Amino acid sequence: MSDGKAPQKKLLKALAGEKTDGPPIWLMRQAGRYLPEYRKVRADAGSFLDLCYAPALAEEVTLQPIRRYGFDAAILFSDILVVPDALGQKVAFKEGEGPVLEPVTDAAGIAALKSPAGVKAELAPVYETVSRLRASLPPEVTLIGFAGAPWTVATYMVGGRGSPDQAAAKLLAYREPETFQSLIEILVEATVEHLSAQVEAGAEVLQIFDTWAGSLPEPSFERFALKPVKAIRAKLKARFPHIPVIAFPRGAGGMAERYFRETGVEGLSLDTGVSPAWAKAHLQPLGCVQGNLDPLLLVAGGDEMRAQARHILETFGQAPFIFNLGHGIVPQTPPDHVGELVKLVKDWRS
Amino acid sequence: MSDGKAPQKKLLKALAGEKTDGPPIWLMRQAGRYLPEYRKVRADAGSFLDLCYAPALAEEVTLQPIRRYGFDAAILFSDILVVPDALGQKVAFKEGEGPVLEPVTDAAGIAALKSPAGVKAELAPVYETVSRLRASLPPEVTLIGFAGAPWTVATYMVGGRGSPDQAAAKLLAYREPETFQSLIEILVEATVEHLSAQVEAGAEVLQIFDTWAGSLPEPSFERFALKPVKAIRAKLKARFPHIPVIAFPRGAGGMAERYFRETGVEGLSLDTGVSPAWAKAHLQPLGCVQGNLDPLLLVAGGDEMRAQARHILETFGQAPFIFNLGHGIVPQTPPDHVGELVKLVKDWRS
Repeated sequence: MSDGKAPQKKLLKALAGEKTDGPPIWLMRQAGRYLPEYRKVRADAGSFLDLCYAPALAEEVTLQPIRRYGFDAAILFSDILVVPDALGQKVAFKEGEGPVLEPVTDAAGIAALKSPAGVKAELAPVYETVSRLRASLPPEVTLIGFAGAPWTVATYMVGGRGSPDQAAAKLLAYREPETFQSLIEILVEATVEHLSAQVEAGAEVLQIFDTWAGSLPEPSFERFALKPVKAIRAKLKARFPHIPVIAFPRGAGGMAERYFRETGVEGLSLDTGVSPAWAKAHLQPLGCVQGNLDPLLLVAGGDEMRAQARHILETFGQAPFIFNLGHGIVPQTPPDHVGELVKLVKDWRS
Repeated sequence: MSDGKAPQKKLLKALAGEKTDGPPIWLMRQAGRYLPEYRKVRADAGSFLDLCYAPALAEEVTLQPIRRYGFDAAILFSDILVVPDALGQKVAFKEGEGPVLEPVTDAAGIAALKSPAGVKAELAPVYETVSRLRASLPPEVTLIGFAGAPWTVATYMVGGRGSPDQAAAKLLAYREPETFQSLIEILVEATVEHLSAQVEAGAEVLQIFDTWAGSLPEPSFERFALKPVKAIRAKLKARFPHIPVIAFPRGAGGMAERYFRETGVEGLSLDTGVSPAWAKAHLQPLGCVQGNLDPLLLVAGGDEMRAQARHILETFGQAPFIFNLGHGIVPQTPPDHVGELVKLVKDWRS
């Protein structure tokens, strides 16, 4: 998608390492249940996955927060579990329960998955949503595609659902490292296919969500979190040299520095628990950082939200930086608080 | 309890900054449901809190893993929620549900709590357990007392139960920082009283568990996690200059360095996600580190458990260090794996 000229959009400038006139802002889960217009579309759409696979509706909910707040980026409305779905693992979203999958727990289950090469055909409606969005978004708004990182997607595939300790995936990884590695490799390939198809359809930036990276001990983090994302980044770079990638290794703590350097991603998304002072010293010199207001501050609003948003702006705002949350917007967020935050960030100047 | 001479017990030597002949080892939740002898006592004891308040039974379950494995330290069998219980907040442990409390959600609820000065009288059976243990433990075994950190205890007091995002406590802290601060101050005082009484009864080391420290953004972490533990540490130091304190700020990530330096604790317990390589460079120079094998490696056992245990030993074993897990033993742990781990650590020499 690049014509070789310097990027003009604010988000792309920040990811290219340029200082912008005030930081760009978007928020994880900016399209979602906290918005009444989203709940309306969702109620008519059938299941959550039906919505992900309905291009006109997925386009509409992606655009809703752009219309309402004027964010600098739109992120495709989809889910990280469309990849296991495309690999033939049945995924269902149950109300109040989250995703439920038929668990893949052994080598036979992994061998029974469909080929990653088929992802592009299986997920055609997702890429149609991307194409529509690229055509309908205002020219100053950047379109972000995304996928889950192999480790995080594997925790759902092996466990069959979310869990606080990722026990099922960890036990498979510890008891049968080679078996687990084979699943990770399938997911590396499938993720590259899925992200490539999003770029071909018009995505300008890619984000890789590794929600459960922080629970892995160092040797497993290297093998199952760092290396797969490094491999994905390298393969994408070979295909699309000008498309920047943001990674979100949630909870990586002190390992974030090595991760940022070794994966070669352009942007690192920081969770709520990351100290801005620490990240300014150790992470921002390596690339563009993104984050990291507590989503619960957006629920609370008021003085504390403003003070902590300013703390983040003042710490990171002197260098390439994207304002975001430390995790996704939660459903009980008052939409007015989001509007107030966007105004605060847009009005701020270093 | 100190006679001014250099400590002879291995755990005390490590916390005094001395290198030991092989690291001492104990494991968080070493007394617990994975042991058949514990389940037997537990079945006859009534509720979980009844067991915490029955000195002879609490002594027995504390001693069980010492007899079985020869750990270098015994940790008092108790719970962090005895403090809210002593402050008059009704606490119940429901089978399969965890702790349930009548939530304290506002200034009136905080004002209705009993005085922290009464903790020593309310929790007399706990200190009797400590006295019994000091008399019955083998002379080479160190007795550890403990408490929850104010922030973590407050998350249960305000939320009424455990939660993945600590939303209730955070929202109170964000919306009414002064109200929340008053609860933290009560907890600082109550924790000092509770830990002091444990020392007076014979505890030789104190550990402060801040399980939910990692979810706080930097300004809130400073105010509600770092400063309260610093205050507790200073007050204890004034009363008992020779009693070392270990803090466990789980998930503190890059903030662990500042936390270790500023709280002034002698030991820092590291969660599973902390990189040993990073901690060796940034944390071990500041004091004794403790950790951090994944409890799920102890469930899996085998080559991976041995390799990751050796990785930890080889990284930390050249300087003062206590071998432990990154979080508590889980119920499905095979007792034989614990025995194998203890032997591996005891046989290891740098």
